[in-house]
Parts: sequence; C-alpha cells; structure tokens
Amino acid sequence: MSDDLKRKRSGGRTGNARRAGGQAISQMSWRIPVNPDRPIEPMGPEGVEAIHKGAMRILKDIGIRFLNDEALGLFAQAGCRVEGQTVRMDEDFVMEMVARAPAEFTITPRNPDRILPMGGKHILFGNVSSPPNYWDLERGKVSGFMDGFRDFIKLTQYFNCIHFAGGYPVEPIDIHPSVRHLDCVYEKLVLTDKVVHAYSLGKERVEDAMEMVRIAGGLSHEEFRATPRMFTNINSVSPLKHDFPMIDGALRLARAGQAVIVTPFTLAGAMAPVTMAGAVTLSIAEALAAIALIQYVAPGAPVMIGTFTSNVDMKSGAPAFGTPEYMRATQMTGQMARFYGLPLRSSGVCAANIPDGQAMWETSNSLWAAVQSGTNLVYHAAGWLEGGLIASPEKFIMDCEVLQMIQRYMEPEVWATTPEDIAIGTIAEVGPDGHYFGCQHTQDRYTTAFYQPFVSDWRNFEAWQIDGAVWTPERAHRIFRAIMAEFEAPPMDPGVHEELSAFVARRKAEGGAPTDF
Amino acid sequence: MSDDLKRKRSGGRTGNARRAGGQAISQMSWRIPVNPDRPIEPMGPEGVEAIHKGAMRILKDIGIRFLNDEALGLFAQAGCRVEGQTVRMDEDFVMEMVARAPAEFTITPRNPDRILPMGGKHILFGNVSSPPNYWDLERGKVSGFMDGFRDFIKLTQYFNCIHFAGGYPVEPIDIHPSVRHLDCVYEKLVLTDKVVHAYSLGKERVEDAMEMVRIAGGLSHEEFRATPRMFTNINSVSPLKHDFPMIDGALRLARAGQAVIVTPFTLAGAMAPVTMAGAVTLSIAEALAAIALIQYVAPGAPVMIGTFTSNVDMKSGAPAFGTPEYMRATQMTGQMARFYGLPLRSSGVCAANIPDGQAMWETSNSLWAAVQSGTNLVYHAAGWLEGGLIASPEKFIMDCEVLQMIQRYMEPEVWATTPEDIAIGTIAEVGPDGHYFGCQHTQDRYTTAFYQPFVSDWRNFEAWQIDGAVWTPERAHRIFRAIMAEFEAPPMDPGVHEELSAFVARRKAEGGAPTDF
Repeated sequence: MSDDLKRKRSGGRTGNARRAGGQAISQMSWRIPVNPDRPIEPMGPEGVEAIHKGAMRILKDIGIRFLNDEALGLFAQAGCRVEGQTVRMDEDFVMEMVARAPAEFTITPRNPDRILPMGGKHILFGNVSSPPNYWDLERGKVSGFMDGFRDFIKLTQYFNCIHFAGGYPVEPIDIHPSVRHLDCVYEKLVLTDKVVHAYSLGKERVEDAMEMVRIAGGLSHEEFRATPRMFTNINSVSPLKHDFPMIDGALRLARAGQAVIVTPFTLAGAMAPVTMAGAVTLSIAEALAAIALIQYVAPGAPVMIGTFTSNVDMKSGAPAFGTPEYMRATQMTGQMARFYGLPLRSSGVCAANIPDGQAMWETSNSLWAAVQSGTNLVYHAAGWLEGGLIASPEKFIMDCEVLQMIQRYMEPEVWATTPEDIAIGTIAEVGPDGHYFGCQHTQDRYTTAFYQPFVSDWRNFEAWQIDGAVWTPERAHRIFRAIMAEFEAPPMDPGVHEELSAFVARRKAEGGAPTDF
Repeated sequence: MSDDLKRKRSGGRTGNARRAGGQAISQMSWRIPVNPDRPIEPMGPEGVEAIHKGAMRILKDIGIRFLNDEALGLFAQAGCRVEGQTVRMDEDFVMEMVARAPAEFTITPRNPDRILPMGGKHILFGNVSSPPNYWDLERGKVSGFMDGFRDFIKLTQYFNCIHFAGGYPVEPIDIHPSVRHLDCVYEKLVLTDKVVHAYSLGKERVEDAMEMVRIAGGLSHEEFRATPRMFTNINSVSPLKHDFPMIDGALRLARAGQAVIVTPFTLAGAMAPVTMAGAVTLSIAEALAAIALIQYVAPGAPVMIGTFTSNVDMKSGAPAFGTPEYMRATQMTGQMARFYGLPLRSSGVCAANIPDGQAMWETSNSLWAAVQSGTNLVYHAAGWLEGGLIASPEKFIMDCEVLQMIQRYMEPEVWATTPEDIAIGTIAEVGPDGHYFGCQHTQDRYTTAFYQPFVSDWRNFEAWQIDGAVWTPERAHRIFRAIMAEFEAPPMDPGVHEELSAFVARRKAEGGAPTDF
C-alpha cells in the first residue's frame, strides 16, 4: 500500500475530522471530452449503402413486431402496414421520421454545471448498469444489495471521468421490486448531481422517476418538459421485436421531452445473424423502427442509436465482449449512425469474471472501439464484469484509470506543435551532454505535461515489492475503501430533499409499482 | 484448469508419444497481417512540417555527436560539417539520403516460407527483447538465465502471431558475455525458423551473427548478401548522440545488405523535451542522421525508423509506457515516417511489474497505438514487463491473445457486406420467434465466424469457479508449461546444424568476443 493511501486510510479510521481533509486519490477535473480523431471506418460507402438497404428491406418486407397496442395504433395512423403485431414501413416514412431527430442535444441534471452535450464529437462515460450480482475482493460474488448499489453510486459521483449515472449499477434485490425504483432513483438523485437514467419498466416506474428528477431539479412541470433532464435506454427483443414496457417508457419520456436511447441487443449467432454485417443490419432496422415511432409521436425528440452487437462463444453460446468482431461491429454502427445523423451509444464491456488481465484487454478493446467509432455516450464504461452479470468496485476503479487516459488522449496540447512545443532552443541548450529534468522548459511544464495515474503503479519492481507487492485489483480495492471513507454527497437544497423524501414516502405508502407485469 | 488443458498436460507427463499428438492450445495459423485502417493522424500537415523543419534545424544548426570515427570520416567525405565528433548536415543532404531508402523490403529467414514484408500496410510482431530479469508465477523475479531464454525462444517459435525473433528475450547472465552471443544466436537459429535480430554490440558479435544466419540458411556469401536475411536495431544515446558499437553494427549490416532499424530512446522530460512534439522532433533528427549515414554508405539499404518516445513519471523519473502521451507520440511518429517514406517500428510496452490489469491496459494502449500509427514492425509485442526490465512467459501468453485479436481485427471478412453477409433471407427465415443458433447460415459459418481465444475464459462465473477460479496469469502459466512440454524445434538440415555447431565451437575456442569495450 502506498504511503499516501496508508495516510488516508488511517485518516478514515480516526474519524471525520481528518477524513474531511483527506483525498483518496488525485484525479482529473470534470471535463466534457471532445474526440478529435477521424473515426475508423472499415466499410466503404457501398457497405454503408448495403446495410442501409438491408435494414430498409427488413422494415418494409419482414417487419418488426411491436408487443404494444398503442404503438400499433400509432403506426397504423401513420400509414404503415400493421398486420397483427407486425409493422411494416417504407423507407420514405422511416427516413422522414429519422430526419426529425436532432443530431445533437443536451441533458441537464439537477446541477446545471453537469449539463451534458450529446452528439457531435463529444464522448461521455457512465457507470456499469443492471448486473444482478456484486463482486469484490472481500466478499466474492454475492447477489446485488442496496449498500453495494449505494457504493457504486458514490463512485459514479466521485469520479469526474464518469459523466452520468446510468441504470442501477447493481440490482438491489434486498429491496422489494414494487418500491425498488423509488429507493434507487432517490439514492441516485441524492448521492449524485449528474444526469440520471430511468428504466422503462412500466408506467408507474417511469412516471415516478420523471417526477423525482423534476423535484430534485427544483423544476416546475413546464421547466422539466422544456429541455431534456434525464434519459432512458430501451432494448429491442432481438430478433425483430419491441416489447410493451420498453416502448411504453420510450413514448412517455419522448412526450415529456426527455431523451431515449434505442439499443438492440443483437448477439451475432444467437439473436442475430452470425455475420457482423447481418447483425448490424438487424440492429439498425430494430433501432430505426423505434426511433421512427418516437419521432412520429414527438417530432424532434432527443434520441440516440445504441449498439450492443457482439458475438457469442460458439462453444458455449455465452456472449463474448471486446472481441475483434465486437470492435468492428461498433465501428460499422458508427458509420451507420453518421449516415442517419444520430448520436451513438456504445459500451465498455468484457466477458471476464474478475478484474484481471483478460478483463482489461477486453474492456480496453471495447473502450477504444467506442473512441474509434465516434461514440457519443459510453454505457457501462466502469465496473462491468462477466458479460454484465457482475458489477465490481475494483473494476470500476480500474476502468476509471483507462477512461482518464482516454480523456487525456483527447487533449490537443498532447500533440501541439508550436515553436514552444518543438523546443529547438531547449534542445540546443541541453545539448548532447545534458538531460531535460532540470531545464526551464521542463520545469515550466512538468506538473501538467503528462497523465498522472492513480491506480497504476509506475515504480520499479523493488520499490513495488518492498511496499507489499500489491497487484492492481487489490490497489483498486484499497482506493475503493478510501473513497467510500471520504465520500460526501453533493449539496441538495433541504426543501428539495424534503419534497423528494416525501414523494418517495407517499408512493411507498401507495404500494409503489405493480410487480406482476 | 480446463479439461482440454488437463488432457494435454497429462499427455505431456506421459511422454513424447502422446505429447506429439497433443496441442497445448488451438491458435491462429501463421499469417502476415495487413492493416486496413487509415492511420490516426493527430497533427495536420502544418504539424508534420513543423516537426520536419525542427528536425532539419537540429541536424543543421545543433548537430549530432557520432562517437564513431568511421562515421565522422564518412560524413566529412559526404560534405557534411564535422567539428570534433559533432556532425551538422543540410536538409538537402538528409532528404537526398533518406529518399534512397526503400519504402518496402523483405527479410527472408532460414525457412523461406517465413519471409516477412516490411513496410506498406503490413504489421508484424516480435518477442520482448533485452530484459535483464525473468519473472514467472513460480519463480518470482530472478536474473535472466539460459533456460529461461530458451523457453522464450520456444514461445517465439510456437506462436504463429509472433513473426520474428527480436533481441534476447531475456539476458542469460549465466553465460559468459564473451560467448553469450554465440549461444544465444545458435539457440535462436535452431529453435526458430523465423527472421532473427542481432545486437550491434561490437564487430565480433555482429560478424558472428551474420555468419551464423548465413550458415543456418544454407546460403553462400553471395546469397546472404543478395537480399535481407536478418536485421539489427540500433538506439541513439539521446540526446543527440550515436555511440560507437551501434553505428559500427549498423554499417556492417547495411554493407552486407541486411536491415537496420534506427530507434532513438527519447523519454520526454528525461533525455528529450518534456513536450511530445519536442521529443518526437529530437527522435526524428537522431534517426535521420543515422539513416542518412547508412544510405550514404549503402544506397538503398533496407532501413526502418523506430519510435520509442514515451514520458517519464514526473514523481519518480521512472519511464512510463502505454500512456496517452506515448500513444500520441507513436501516432505522430507514424505521420513523420510516412512523410519520409520509411517503414515504422514501434513497441508493445508497459510499466507494470506483473501481468495484471495495469499490464494489459498499458500494453493494449501501446499495441493499439501501433495499429493506429501504421506501424510495420512491433518490437516487444509479447512478454514485456517493468518498462523492459522483466520478461515474463505469462505476459507473453497473454499478449499473444491480444495480438491474435489484432490479427483477426484486420481480416476484411469481419466487416464484409455481401448479400450473404447482410443475410436478409436468413433474417426472414428466422423471423421474430426463432434464434440463429441452428439456422443454415450460422451452421455454414460458426466454426470460423468469430475469434476463438486460448487464454481468455468466456465461461460464466459459476463454471469458471467450479473449474478452480483461475485468474488469467495462472491460466497463462499453465499454457506456458503445456507449450514447453510439447514444443518441437523446427526441422534443420543435419549438415547445416553440424556446420552451425562447429562454427560456435570454433569461435568459443577462439575466445568469442572481447568483453572490454
């Protein structure tokens, strides 16, 4: 354990007075990264056209099944062919609807300084969402629980490289499903001041979440609806289906002016063709069908297209993530998103069960694919393990190191070529016999010249060994504990807090949400 | 441990007969990857021009010190200004010499099927080179030794994703330095049939290595000189110096028609300016000075420009690798290499001390930077730890998984968009109620559709746990042992083998190389 960390941890043990002055790590400041790289585009224009035409054929000839009567009625009203639950739509309709979607929009959370620009060259990161299980070095794998949920939300708030609070970082199964959304959204809104997500899991949950976001922001109903304040993410039920609650939630948010991400879950070889182009084509068709519906109902509603195309392990059928095929599918979907003028969501994902080397090469692959694809919003960017079945605080900490490096990678000063950067005068001054440690050019810049890690250990082997030979996951675990010891929730107006608590209490008294759908 | 591995290892224990039939892992076949991606280019043309002009000013006004009298004489003969050991040269001379270098060339090892194309869109991977220490899970960190050296050479031969045998994968300090090169080059030539490297560490070592490569290839002296059969890598002594043996070796290889990589070791903030542009400019100047000399002596000699620009940890002065700054410097050097029409070498590197998560995010960063920069030859692509002070077999195995994924990432079939890939007929056939596991389109493709890992464990947590909950480094260690148990050296003509052994014996009897330079 490093001296710094020892100091902080003993601070944590001796009480609040010292803890308040402590800092578990030195991290990057909050920033909105701008991705300066030209996207990697594996397909030529003919490939983009082939996938587009394929998606249009699926929508026109095969159709998408909507398990939602309201959606069926709306499509019929729009002139689409509705047979049973299957909707078929023409390219003209789809493209007219998609053209209504904004290329860029913002989402403003309760702290307006945390406003997020969605689209363009921006890339934003969020916490792992939805694992049923929790794993850490102390506990091993356990079912999700509310204290663990809370810890992840604290990490989400703590790290400046995490821009938004996605879905539940772990499912707290110790809270009854009828009121779980009330407790979870409450914790998210109190423990963070960042943009939050709400699950589309039925009318009551969606309406409760919107009302809670409105209250937490101290907003009137009109103010809430005037600009996006939150978002949901819906998945299609691949192949070729959208289910009731997801579409219901998407419509509710869109009508309330809130943002919707549509992310088909097209695992090649399982719910989608074994070929990446086939899986991407299916994904695009499913996503555009829902986006067309949203834009029909709420023209100009803020939407994003999501990709979750990966492949399965053909030996076991298990999903694989961060594979070469995953990377190319993400890049291909990026090309399609730009073709349609839609912001793109992808993910930071892996198949590994524990935060080891495999976890990090798979996650690095998926995060670099996000960068290369021009992704605007990276879901699950920190904390994901076991194909999304486990959330891990150590993995969260480790991923944040990678995310900070990606943020630094995007800062133009790194590759600046002004005369002061080229530094011919300094090269002449140092000459062939000197070194650059002490020269003025270095002294003027050394505190900010390079990325400073917080979990990576750059000491040599002997220094690392004398200090306990601590491998990365254990270092991450210690940092996790230190952050928990010093965490302070962001300020919230007492009146707003009271109103929020009262709303939760009332809705709990009313029984929360039905749990039988 | 997986059943497969258990079977193989027990095969290994019961003797050669079963071992011969065994296979430690199922790996990708040998291939020469072609990088289809447009390089990431952080700088605009004005940035490239600024670095070029900066490098030219260094060469013209500041000069490079050559600690090699022959080089000084050659530069003087070429009309450059030589004062003491400092050489100053004009842009016209440098650019005329650099223009002589081929943009692409080949190196042919003793097995001509392993011929390597250098330059263009090709990207090739080699083993870790030059660490003084060895680390594995059983031994911990120990000084390099010949058995460890041999094991790494076996891994180098075993993995099809390793295209060449670079420098000594670990320094065998149990072999006397006067004869170490004889034993090491012998082992490389016998245990592999891939392209080999020779250190530029004095006349005797260089001449011995060239002679041994010639013998191993069954070549006449004329045949050896007719086309590149091997290569050396030389480093400048940054800032602004080239030392005697490196330049001596480079000249010897170039005159013999063999390939030379010139790789300045410009750590920003230590031996180079703290700014990436400054460090790259210095690196380019140092590299071009040596390349100009080589091309003056041997017009058209096969050369590559290498980058080893990274930054130091400003807290400790220790080198850092795989940082955001490292990635951009590699990409910037790629832009310069294309500007000069030279093939590019970069590296697979990290600062981590053990093969954990940090090791893999740093290595992934450096390997993806190699891909993004248009690198043609990746040194240290497998096995590197502790900033190059440790070679680890577990890390070697883990890196090979990443390298195989990069190779798969580059195969155009992954993003192909033929009608068979888009698969509209299959999407219609499966419809909204089916799945794709069983359909003909999947059945026809599933064995080759996706990358198949050999060390990644894609099973779910429970299956992984029941099987011993083995983390990646231990899985890699077991694979390492299994490969060692089944390794077979590539065939070598007995007459050739005898001649090679006789040469080594004679040169040892003569005392090998002097050890006092």
